[in-house]
Amino acid sequence: MPVVVVDVMPKPEILDPQGKAVQGALPRLGFSGVTDVRQGKRFEITVEGEVTDAVLEQVHQMAETLLSNPVIENFTVRVAASDAGTVA
Amino acid sequence: MPVVVVDVMPKPEILDPQGKAVQGALPRLGFSGVTDVRQGKRFEITVEGEVTDAVLEQVHQMAETLLSNPVIENFTVRVAASDAGTVA
Repeated sequence: MPVVVVDVMPKPEILDPQGKAVQGALPRLGFSGVTDVRQGKRFEITVEGEVTDAVLEQVHQMAETLLSNPVIENFTVRVAASDAGTVA
Repeated sequence: MPVVVVDVMPKPEILDPQGKAVQGALPRLGFSGVTDVRQGKRFEITVEGEVTDAVLEQVHQMAETLLSNPVIENFTVRVAASDAGTVA
């Protein structure tokens, strides 16, 4: 079944304490060369049937009302491959 | 500066309470046709200079040691556009 991916990230002008914590930990772990880290959320939404414009519009509304806080977060909606497995 | 994106998702065989909570809320909000929701994390890592294989290898190690728990999560590493802004 098709998977729609919603990425939710803190807006650029919003402080991101989680990202800063990761960024602060990197040098202590021996990693260098990283100038910024932002942490957000990723949702993989499996939908029934075809991904039509109406379905994408519905996912857009889900993202706006449930998955993100539009005051402090931006989001993107896109269609992933049917077997959108994340592989390590 | 180039941005490397790390997506961290719970492994398919692992229960995902956050995703299930979202899935359970959708019908109450009037959304139908969603068969599954998985919630994970997305990191945008800004690196200095060029994204070489060595840099990607280093980000891979960060993902494995700091950004994910390899026992319960899979991750993917990919290069995003330089101005990888997420737009609502």
